Amino acid sequence: AANKKLLFLPGDGIGPEVMRQVRRVIDWMDRKRKITFDVSEGLVGGAAIDAHGVPLSDATLAEALAVDAVMLGAVGGPKWDNPTDYTKRPEAGLLALRKELGLFANLRPAVVFDALVDASTLKADVIRGLDILIVRELTGGVYFGEPRGITDIGNGERRGVNTQVYTTPEIRRVARVAFELARKRGNKLCSMEKANVMESGLLWRQEVTKLHQEEFQDVELSHMYADNGAMQLLKNPKQFDVIVTDNLFGDILSDEAAMMTGSLGMLPSASLGAPDANGNRKALYEPVHGSAPDIAGRDLANPCATLLSFAMCLRYSFNLDEDAKLIERAIQNVLGGGMRTSDIMAPGMARCSTTVMGDSILREL
Amino acid sequence: AANKKLLFLPGDGIGPEVMRQVRRVIDWMDRKRKITFDVSEGLVGGAAIDAHGVPLSDATLAEALAVDAVMLGAVGGPKWDNPTDYTKRPEAGLLALRKELGLFANLRPAVVFDALVDASTLKADVIRGLDILIVRELTGGVYFGEPRGITDIGNGERRGVNTQVYTTPEIRRVARVAFELARKRGNKLCSMEKANVMESGLLWRQEVTKLHQEEFQDVELSHMYADNGAMQLLKNPKQFDVIVTDNLFGDILSDEAAMMTGSLGMLPSASLGAPDANGNRKALYEPVHGSAPDIAGRDLANPCATLLSFAMCLRYSFNLDEDAKLIERAIQNVLGGGMRTSDIMAPGMARCSTTVMGDSILREL
Ligand SMILES: CC(C)[C@H](C(=O)O)[C@@H](O)C(=O)O
Ligand SMILES: CC(C)[C@H](C(=O)O)[C@@H](O)C(=O)O
Repeated sequence: AANKKLLFLPGDGIGPEVMRQVRRVIDWMDRKRKITFDVSEGLVGGAAIDAHGVPLSDATLAEALAVDAVMLGAVGGPKWDNPTDYTKRPEAGLLALRKELGLFANLRPAVVFDALVDASTLKADVIRGLDILIVRELTGGVYFGEPRGITDIGNGERRGVNTQVYTTPEIRRVARVAFELARKRGNKLCSMEKANVMESGLLWRQEVTKLHQEEFQDVELSHMYADNGAMQLLKNPKQFDVIVTDNLFGDILSDEAAMMTGSLGMLPSASLGAPDANGNRKALYEPVHGSAPDIAGRDLANPCATLLSFAMCLRYSFNLDEDAKLIERAIQNVLGGGMRTSDIMAPGMARCSTTVMGDSILREL
Repeated sequence: AANKKLLFLPGDGIGPEVMRQVRRVIDWMDRKRKITFDVSEGLVGGAAIDAHGVPLSDATLAEALAVDAVMLGAVGGPKWDNPTDYTKRPEAGLLALRKELGLFANLRPAVVFDALVDASTLKADVIRGLDILIVRELTGGVYFGEPRGITDIGNGERRGVNTQVYTTPEIRRVARVAFELARKRGNKLCSMEKANVMESGLLWRQEVTKLHQEEFQDVELSHMYADNGAMQLLKNPKQFDVIVTDNLFGDILSDEAAMMTGSLGMLPSASLGAPDANGNRKALYEPVHGSAPDIAGRDLANPCATLLSFAMCLRYSFNLDEDAKLIERAIQNVLGGGMRTSDIMAPGMARCSTTVMGDSILREL
């Protein structure tokens, strides 16, 4: 069989540093597991703006559409903030990738690692053993709705508009992914919106309810207003198993959940498209954390989130569950042994660099 | 001088119970402080739907427009969920009040009471002494933007739309309130939006920056993406003084901040309009918590948030700072003495009912 094709898009800030550790794991797989990937590399975000004047070139997009999976580092940084042309910001590259690849389902696990339970600002009892999965809609809503833009309305005044829009099929397909994932986990799904204020949220609630009745009655479904969701996550996060929500609420709630774990540098994500006739789906994997410009280039970043994203890639795109588990276990063991990058450093542990964390994980493998 | 006019809208769930304690404080002021109010009472939310078929009758709205300040309990409950007519939900009554009274600035303090520092799910060190103020825009954005609604798009499919819209004057007036409040506090303002994704957020950032340069250079201004804001609130809440944000982000972030304090039952809010020629502004005061249908009618609710909302009313609408402080101090002392309603109960404290909490506060006064 032909090798599986991977596109690496390291992006900006700490992106290249953390992605380098994934390369090392791939080399190891090649040598030790006889699993070989064809890896190509491209630019996205600020790096692409600097090189090509656009945050995602047509050639890179074409490449992303051609490969089996994309691994992304992070995009953005102060250098490209406040662009005069709104299409020329690093984030536009990432958003175009999500949209053009049809990656409508964003899976964001919020997991507390035993070794890191004290890294959270939340009390250990509240988060110990936490394992929730947020499924965020990723190609719709206010991120992509039209009309949008800023217009002059006279008198030197302006008006900024964005449109929150969801159709029934958009809601159903992401809800289906969430129901299916819930079935493989704790069998509980909580859907979050503001149906009490927004009609798009009311439609969301109605369609999730309908799909539940039609196909997923065995899954326990609840609904929550997103503001209450933000509170319940803090009050008692373990009440949740899988959460499904829209693009904007998902952005905020998944970041809240991620920070609650105290281990933002440990959290991976997968963005998946619809399966084709052969059951293959477009996919992009990236850490939940951002480009962290303040520590970029200093070998300080935590590579674990990106390595765990690669483990998700092995599992969801290539069905290599065993190899995914090897990586996950190696990371757990290294943490158990006391190795810590600065972001998760704690008294009595051994502070290490990005590279040394990578070394340790490879040694463990 | 004529008496000050207050309209009481107890609303649904625990609303009437907690508002009853405000009545008792007003009686006390009448007797002991010789400050007399003309208090009228009306229906809002589910209670108004049951009585008049609408969540806010024209007569009640007219009354709200005529008085000096409105005190509101809470609206909503399962009884009125999933209405067939979207204008017939309890929340529509509250939203109409906000819009018709022009209450564009919603002040939501997130304060940790010393006596309650252990009630939070966050570590005591992280939140001890926390005192931040979230200024939420309340009459614009996706809550009120047009077009909105659900339409059939054929094939049995539907489309739900809401519109996020802000104009320059809407942004400036709420930012001005926030800058002015920051000046009276820690002199720091953080503005939150998603300028990296939404043009309405970009306009927000540009206008806040402009106003800062024009009139508030003495205030330290920063900007944060709202998802990062949700994280930073958890990571290090004390980095903030005043936060200004839009209606929807404000809804979620202020609830997150409120829950972080661990004392949701303690948090008041004020919603203010623009000052008229005499410096008077329309105003509505309500607790941050909701109608809590699960404990309604059982004399279990914490009346403190509503009493502190009344203290805000005395301060902002009637310039009675000294009386506001009396109430605030009475509540602090009662907490210091160990009295706790169920929501803030802790080992070694004395559990009490709504009424007994009211008794104790009155005794303290
Ligand atoms: C970088 C930004 C465009 C992006 C988003 O808002 O979706 C990020 O915050 C995320 O959550 O992946
Ligand atoms: C009841 C609801 C309409 C309201 C809102 O979304 O604004 C509430 O959550 C609030 O924050 O006051």
